[in-house]
Amino acid sequence: MRIAVLGTGVAGRTLAGKLVESGHDVVLGSRTATNEAAVGWAAEAGPRAKAATFFDAAAEAEVVINATPGAVSLEVLAAASTKNLAGKVLIDVANPLDHSAGFPPSLSISNTDSLAETIQRAFPTARVVKALNTMRADVMVAPDRLAGGDHDVFMAGDDAEAKAVVAGILREFGWRTEHIRDLGPLESARGLEMWLPLWLRIFLKQGNNVFNIKVVSD
Amino acid sequence: MRIAVLGTGVAGRTLAGKLVESGHDVVLGSRTATNEAAVGWAAEAGPRAKAATFFDAAAEAEVVINATPGAVSLEVLAAASTKNLAGKVLIDVANPLDHSAGFPPSLSISNTDSLAETIQRAFPTARVVKALNTMRADVMVAPDRLAGGDHDVFMAGDDAEAKAVVAGILREFGWRTEHIRDLGPLESARGLEMWLPLWLRIFLKQGNNVFNIKVVSD
Repeated sequence: MRIAVLGTGVAGRTLAGKLVESGHDVVLGSRTATNEAAVGWAAEAGPRAKAATFFDAAAEAEVVINATPGAVSLEVLAAASTKNLAGKVLIDVANPLDHSAGFPPSLSISNTDSLAETIQRAFPTARVVKALNTMRADVMVAPDRLAGGDHDVFMAGDDAEAKAVVAGILREFGWRTEHIRDLGPLESARGLEMWLPLWLRIFLKQGNNVFNIKVVSD
Repeated sequence: MRIAVLGTGVAGRTLAGKLVESGHDVVLGSRTATNEAAVGWAAEAGPRAKAATFFDAAAEAEVVINATPGAVSLEVLAAASTKNLAGKVLIDVANPLDHSAGFPPSLSISNTDSLAETIQRAFPTARVVKALNTMRADVMVAPDRLAGGDHDVFMAGDDAEAKAVVAGILREFGWRTEHIRDLGPLESARGLEMWLPLWLRIFLKQGNNVFNIKVVSD
């Protein structure tokens, strides 16, 4: 597939790198076509990797991944443009963290709304799926790194076909089917984003963020 | 110890029952001394069990457990009285669920505050510890019921001695020390209460709430 990853931070570069390894053509999008992090990544990642503007990255893509900070996600997606997102699977891995009062951040959107739903309302023709926002990037793309992969990743979205595409990507990342938990409609993204305040405090307490959760059932 | 459990719902009765089994003297508190659920519970639970008003239950107790719905917790604790809570360990297992817009509920307090902190501000001489709000009652008192007890319970509170008392009770319930995760100050209760929206959606999706989470680390 042709996949645009918007955002050149650790999450964006890590996801883009794994997608290239998995055989996809990947464009890492940023504000300018000459962004140093993006161009450097593309040079290292080989012939399937490119750097481009948010607009050009999304224009060429079948799947778009929002890996930008939540505070700028809407602006970045507007730069990618409604036209270039129309009909496409848009995987939202961002979190609406509000750092204005220090660490740990609170959420800028929560409880009766979510960033994912805000994005869906702003780009109603995109097929938004919330996924992967619940853990750090290297765990997203290498679940076996923790407990032999015996922990969970979640999805939420209103489009079943789009979720099937995301589940396929998650399996390429190494997630076993029984650990890919589809929580139903995009509204469930509220739960996935509101996990962050607990995630942050577990991180603070144990001094590192190399962890994830496993749902333990009867 | 003498322990008051405020609230005669499933959580209150389940906690009270296990505490009696563990050898404590337990008073189940409710609005009236003749509450049917409380009196019935006390009759069945044996000589260490009593029913009383919130006020009388708290007056006799060394440890008080708030097992009331979050929406009425402040009112119930006011009935127990500031005087009867002063200096006591107050274990808050409640969640500030707002059911006014249907299921799943949102939170009435969240993000930059929590029910536990609200209670602590209202009763500054109580030693509030948030714990056990993250799972259903029968899992609270019988962790071995799931995966041989290989999952986690959290605590948050500003008083280290109070947290040690709570950890002791958790061990009596069957929690192994390595699964009792102290998340530090009471402010961390924000994370514990904001877990509920995700808990509710996992519940909705799997059709039952007999589950908990385990933090999987490196």
